[in-house]
Amino acid sequence: MGFFDKLERAAQRNGSLLCVGLDPDPARMPVSDVAAFNRAIIEATAGLVCAYKPNLAFYEALGERGLAALRDTLAAIPSDIPVIADGKRSDIGNTAKAYARALFDELGVDAATVNPYLGGDAVEPFLEREEKAAFILCRTSNPGARDLQDLLVTAPGGGEARPLFEMVAEMARRWNSRGNVGLVVGATYPEELKRVRRLCPEMTFLVPGVGAQGGDVAAVVRNGLDKAGRGLIINVSRQVLYASREKDFAVAAAGAARQLRDEIARERERALAES
Amino acid sequence: MGFFDKLERAAQRNGSLLCVGLDPDPARMPVSDVAAFNRAIIEATAGLVCAYKPNLAFYEALGERGLAALRDTLAAIPSDIPVIADGKRSDIGNTAKAYARALFDELGVDAATVNPYLGGDAVEPFLEREEKAAFILCRTSNPGARDLQDLLVTAPGGGEARPLFEMVAEMARRWNSRGNVGLVVGATYPEELKRVRRLCPEMTFLVPGVGAQGGDVAAVVRNGLDKAGRGLIINVSRQVLYASREKDFAVAAAGAARQLRDEIARERERALAES
Repeated sequence: MGFFDKLERAAQRNGSLLCVGLDPDPARMPVSDVAAFNRAIIEATAGLVCAYKPNLAFYEALGERGLAALRDTLAAIPSDIPVIADGKRSDIGNTAKAYARALFDELGVDAATVNPYLGGDAVEPFLEREEKAAFILCRTSNPGARDLQDLLVTAPGGGEARPLFEMVAEMARRWNSRGNVGLVVGATYPEELKRVRRLCPEMTFLVPGVGAQGGDVAAVVRNGLDKAGRGLIINVSRQVLYASREKDFAVAAAGAARQLRDEIARERERALAES
Repeated sequence: MGFFDKLERAAQRNGSLLCVGLDPDPARMPVSDVAAFNRAIIEATAGLVCAYKPNLAFYEALGERGLAALRDTLAAIPSDIPVIADGKRSDIGNTAKAYARALFDELGVDAATVNPYLGGDAVEPFLEREEKAAFILCRTSNPGARDLQDLLVTAPGGGEARPLFEMVAEMARRWNSRGNVGLVVGATYPEELKRVRRLCPEMTFLVPGVGAQGGDVAAVVRNGLDKAGRGLIINVSRQVLYASREKDFAVAAAGAARQLRDEIARERERALAES
């Protein structure tokens, strides 16, 4: 089953467009064992999410111990919930192939985030496996996103100038011949999200930035839903993982995830009623 | 000692601007043990290079075995030769900090390659440690580099349109307040290299793409040297690692590395004589 079918089924089953980012930070965790922490979070939230997204940086920062914890974490995720490895990888073709092997074969995840700066031939190795998906960074959630992504660009053939992130959205559409491309669009820029939705009406967006980063659920849902009322994976990490920093962290995480899932669902109903 | 001092000393000592890319590909290696292969390559070439550059993708593709081989490889590199971890990492500030820890603390390398698409705040965590360096991807060596990097962009305040990679070169100059920023500029685009050198007269460029990718040493040296006749780290991987695919691979690698080092030195003498 391809990534997007698996995603759709999990979203239906759990009534959820929420993705929980598994980004363990030992300085904030109430227990010292990363794998145990993640297992508890997964057990508490597996009925509330459409996907999980471990960010590889947090595991790599722990060396061998981190890689072992990542393996344990992936093994703890129920097989009917898709996993997006967030590594923002990208390299020239020969090397990008090695990254695709690392993620899709070695770790066995369902999807990966990919940085577009190196162009189409660096993205292609992540797309060759049709059952896997790649989410191309389009408009990221951080303040520095403006530095490159908002620069006004003229295409080689001429035409109207537009921000680089819109050009990336159009490229991603062209790269999507197998139907396994998604986009990363930050929740902190709802206007940009709306513009990308107009350019890519049928693509699924992975939306980080709700919660600790300040993105607003209502604006994300209103501006990001596709015509069928789907097409969004709304990622939250810290607000769920560190809902409590005491022993009750897993219960608190479930509470935070349920609240977010239900808020997203309410905003979705509202948006569909209005459209 | 900071990265660039360490680099300068190694370059002087070995009379070399050559960097060997430690990118082990089990399908092409004449021995099956990655660490043993790398150790033999390092022993054979340590007197001929100014730096080593392991590309992380090739280790990640091998899972735990790859991480162990990377550790062994790093331990085998003499401490007076700087190491650039080529991972092309980048993420929002909080996560980029974790990547910087992974590379500079966990692996203990001297420098890293960084993708600029997320902007200044994503690059900053790699620069906070003044003794470490970050090489920002500017103009990469692959054909798809054109897709984004050549797009004509206008800065938010207006001004003349110019290719995105030139804008990145200027941003990198601004990010370089601590003097620990370099640029990645592919050997396969010598004209672009010349333009970047004009924009950043005093920055050090990491130049991949000579050898298997078709970049020309003479053009790289002519267009890339700074006024002091330095400022280049010319990376070669496959042409050295797989100079022979028989038992004599280490001897052959040393031969290939010596030939490249000397060719670079000759072209350097010629370029300095002409200027």
